[in-house]
Amino acid sequence: MKIVIVGGVAGGATTVARLRRMNEQVEIVLLERGKYISYANCGLPYYIGGVIKDRNDLFVRTAEDFGKRFNVDVRTQTEVVSIQRKDKTITIKNRGGIESVESYDKLLLATGARPICPPIPGIDLPGIFTLRNVDDTDRIKRFVANSNVERVAVVGAGFIGLEMAENLQHAGAKVSVIERENQVMAPLDYSMASLVHEHLIEQGVDLYLEHSVEAFEAVDNKIKVKIGEEHSIIVDLVVLSMGVRPENQLALEGGLAIGKTGGIIVNEYLQTNDESIYAIGDVIEYPHPITEKPWLNLLAGPANRQGRIVADNLLGAKIKYEGSIGTSIAKVFDLTVASTGVSAKTLIKEDIPYHSSITHGFSHAGYYPGAMPMSLKLLFSPDDGRVYGAQIIGYEGVDKRIDQVALVIKNRGTIYNLTHIEHAYAPPYSEAKDPVIIAGYVAENILSDKIQVVSWREFHKSRKIKDAILLDIRTNEEQQRHPFDGATHIPLQDLRNRLNELPKDRPIYTFCTVGLRGYLAYRILIQHGFEKVKNLNGGLRILEAATVSNSKIDE
Amino acid sequence: MKIVIVGGVAGGATTVARLRRMNEQVEIVLLERGKYISYANCGLPYYIGGVIKDRNDLFVRTAEDFGKRFNVDVRTQTEVVSIQRKDKTITIKNRGGIESVESYDKLLLATGARPICPPIPGIDLPGIFTLRNVDDTDRIKRFVANSNVERVAVVGAGFIGLEMAENLQHAGAKVSVIERENQVMAPLDYSMASLVHEHLIEQGVDLYLEHSVEAFEAVDNKIKVKIGEEHSIIVDLVVLSMGVRPENQLALEGGLAIGKTGGIIVNEYLQTNDESIYAIGDVIEYPHPITEKPWLNLLAGPANRQGRIVADNLLGAKIKYEGSIGTSIAKVFDLTVASTGVSAKTLIKEDIPYHSSITHGFSHAGYYPGAMPMSLKLLFSPDDGRVYGAQIIGYEGVDKRIDQVALVIKNRGTIYNLTHIEHAYAPPYSEAKDPVIIAGYVAENILSDKIQVVSWREFHKSRKIKDAILLDIRTNEEQQRHPFDGATHIPLQDLRNRLNELPKDRPIYTFCTVGLRGYLAYRILIQHGFEKVKNLNGGLRILEAATVSNSKIDE
Repeated sequence: MKIVIVGGVAGGATTVARLRRMNEQVEIVLLERGKYISYANCGLPYYIGGVIKDRNDLFVRTAEDFGKRFNVDVRTQTEVVSIQRKDKTITIKNRGGIESVESYDKLLLATGARPICPPIPGIDLPGIFTLRNVDDTDRIKRFVANSNVERVAVVGAGFIGLEMAENLQHAGAKVSVIERENQVMAPLDYSMASLVHEHLIEQGVDLYLEHSVEAFEAVDNKIKVKIGEEHSIIVDLVVLSMGVRPENQLALEGGLAIGKTGGIIVNEYLQTNDESIYAIGDVIEYPHPITEKPWLNLLAGPANRQGRIVADNLLGAKIKYEGSIGTSIAKVFDLTVASTGVSAKTLIKEDIPYHSSITHGFSHAGYYPGAMPMSLKLLFSPDDGRVYGAQIIGYEGVDKRIDQVALVIKNRGTIYNLTHIEHAYAPPYSEAKDPVIIAGYVAENILSDKIQVVSWREFHKSRKIKDAILLDIRTNEEQQRHPFDGATHIPLQDLRNRLNELPKDRPIYTFCTVGLRGYLAYRILIQHGFEKVKNLNGGLRILEAATVSNSKIDE
Repeated sequence: MKIVIVGGVAGGATTVARLRRMNEQVEIVLLERGKYISYANCGLPYYIGGVIKDRNDLFVRTAEDFGKRFNVDVRTQTEVVSIQRKDKTITIKNRGGIESVESYDKLLLATGARPICPPIPGIDLPGIFTLRNVDDTDRIKRFVANSNVERVAVVGAGFIGLEMAENLQHAGAKVSVIERENQVMAPLDYSMASLVHEHLIEQGVDLYLEHSVEAFEAVDNKIKVKIGEEHSIIVDLVVLSMGVRPENQLALEGGLAIGKTGGIIVNEYLQTNDESIYAIGDVIEYPHPITEKPWLNLLAGPANRQGRIVADNLLGAKIKYEGSIGTSIAKVFDLTVASTGVSAKTLIKEDIPYHSSITHGFSHAGYYPGAMPMSLKLLFSPDDGRVYGAQIIGYEGVDKRIDQVALVIKNRGTIYNLTHIEHAYAPPYSEAKDPVIIAGYVAENILSDKIQVVSWREFHKSRKIKDAILLDIRTNEEQQRHPFDGATHIPLQDLRNRLNELPKDRPIYTFCTVGLRGYLAYRILIQHGFEKVKNLNGGLRILEAATVSNSKIDE
């Protein structure tokens, strides 16, 4: 049997290795359009920024070593031009431009994705780059080495865009980030993204939200970036990071079924509508386990997992792929930003009812040096508490907590699984009641009606129309140091003795900095006959980030 | 209703806080024998070592603040002398030594545990301490401040013992650790513990394994510690860390049922055999979810969780406690050592069949600066792959991975849940195929008979009796730099061409440094008609630690 694999980076290389481990006899041909296979594509921004110093570190293994170890015919700089499905052949073009025909018994498409480059005037000017592979990286690196790059524009504030912003600033440039939407990092909800906005601004990034690039113009060896109607900036380098779309051309022309997202449609065995052709990685769409709608996950972890599964299936097994929930993480300057499952935005769009909680905790025991705060938004079903998603923003230990929630979501677990977590506790590593457990407990309280929460949006609106009493239960010191206008202030410790100062017929929104004491105040009030009480979800920390980082919120 | 709680540290304090949040009316009395409630007992070693600098940081909240916030009658330095169950009263002795009687409707015992101090001659000498509470801490801290502590003996190499060893060395002392068993840290298996032995020795700790202290003697203001028959050392300070037992005296004298472990027996609602009396924390025993045998978990996390459950149950709920799987972690100098579930030792003792795998991985992508190695032992059922336990030793990121396995064990999951993990991947945080996923895949290979492994013990035995061919498949460079005597050397890249050099009738044990390439060699050999092949579990890294750190292994 002869298996041909198109694409040799994450999914393709994994498939080859597994194929050979399982079967010494099968003939394997690996075709890769670029110069390199099995390289560290997630490391490319860090090489540009100089965090990864040695270019060789990007390469897991040379094509030659790989070919020898796995007894595979590896051909780089080899493009597949077309698939002749009836003949079970493909036409390929080698590095010299010579075309030839190759037969296959089974074909795997692992062609990945390509950057989106909209037809903005001037987008082809020198000094404007996308970043997807080693060649792109070398180009940017060379440009930075040979020019005096003082100012950079990053267009698009997704994960890669912000990684590039950080790395280019690390390399010495002043960075502007331009994003069409009202927030960075689409998998986050606005309130959580606003914590990232705060941080980017603190780090000296010029952040243009709700702005599109209208045109690029060459001006004296520099690039003028026209932003919306009013602004323009002059920069030395532009990085376009406006998302990617599946590299589906070959499949499309070969008559394979393509979904609405642009991804190749595969069945649960990762097989296309041609039973001899399989596909994995960024080029496929697959139903999301929560929304049940096809989506492009565009992540390395699932590509690797699919590679392992598809290798066994190419050899005749019938292993089902379970779908990706989309766990992702990025270092954004000093912050770590992570998400898993789906956001409130998505749940609203898909018309799936949900509850949410926002809680704050620490990376490890507060009394042990170096404990850092983190904020955690949890989304869950109002019916059975199934966890739909989580977003965590902080410094250390964010990765650990998102992985725990991801594992619960992956197993279709509920908030009760979070409350049952038995994590490893010692002061340098965690809190006895760790942020994820706290989030579970708060969610349990919401589901069992032990607390009602008010979102920052409702709270903020109420501040203007003055329908509710905003009850500040922080200490006198906190309140004096950081006053909150328009609130009634009764410190928590005094609340039981001053209940008569509060009316029973009006809504009362309790609040503190993070939400814990607001909850205690809520419990006292509700048990003393105050019926219209709610606690500010996420406390002042979220409210202030969400209202300060976007002045348009009042409009 | 009046609820009296005995013990105000982890479980007791949590219970009070939850009780009051749920119910403003109930009368709550909290009795604590010590001077402090709700303090950071896991932080005590770090205060002694000077890592935590401010003593105030150890106290979460003063008794007065706590009493006010939760409207609770808090009485510190108040001991409960006896329980009169028929009358539903207890006799208490206040700080002045005055006895009085207090009634209760419901009573909660959260009395914790006390250090084991065997009747070793001289154990009461000045300069010999145990560490359990703030008073102990103050005593040690004062002793260190007032004496010139140059040498220290830590007796007992459990988690606390090794934390104390690290902290006292950090404070400037030369430390000897004396342990009766052949390994440190009982929840680990010997092979994994041997990695800790290596590290302790590297750090300059004098490690006495399989040695008991026979006596302490006062010699010129110092303490002579007699170790076994032959050795003795002169030290300035001794810390006894020989384990703890439940503080069950009150329960015992009150006629409550006590189990074989010494823990109070409770039902699934954490209720003792007296329906008005509940118990939580270190003082109870409870069936382990895997062995189904009662055990003392002695951990802060479960105590907190029990506190929350018992609070609701004291108020009339019927919430079941699910039992603790025993996830624990410790910083041991530069290492992080963690375990969850049960060890191979325990499985053997309980006659539960199991498989094990030992794998090695990195804290994050190898090409991103600062990636650190970790070793992971996984124990699982040969029938259905249910995960029984894991032990992880490394530097960064050990906590993250043990928490993932713990979550799978807690949900009675299998190794297939590990292979399905969708963790957050970016170069600074993880590998695309992360150590836990790799462990899952290797376990899957073992269960599906795609690999057979040989333990370091069998391999080592075979090295002496020469029944098997030990096949070293490392590169020439590795083999020359670090030769392995008695092995046949064929580099992996050459193996397919040199198969004729190997006999088909003898067992072949493949090995490399960590085990991955040994597995590749195994797969090649098995598919070319070699039937008696096994791969060294955990590679040379485990073999060498296990054989070097205990020279007695050959006897």
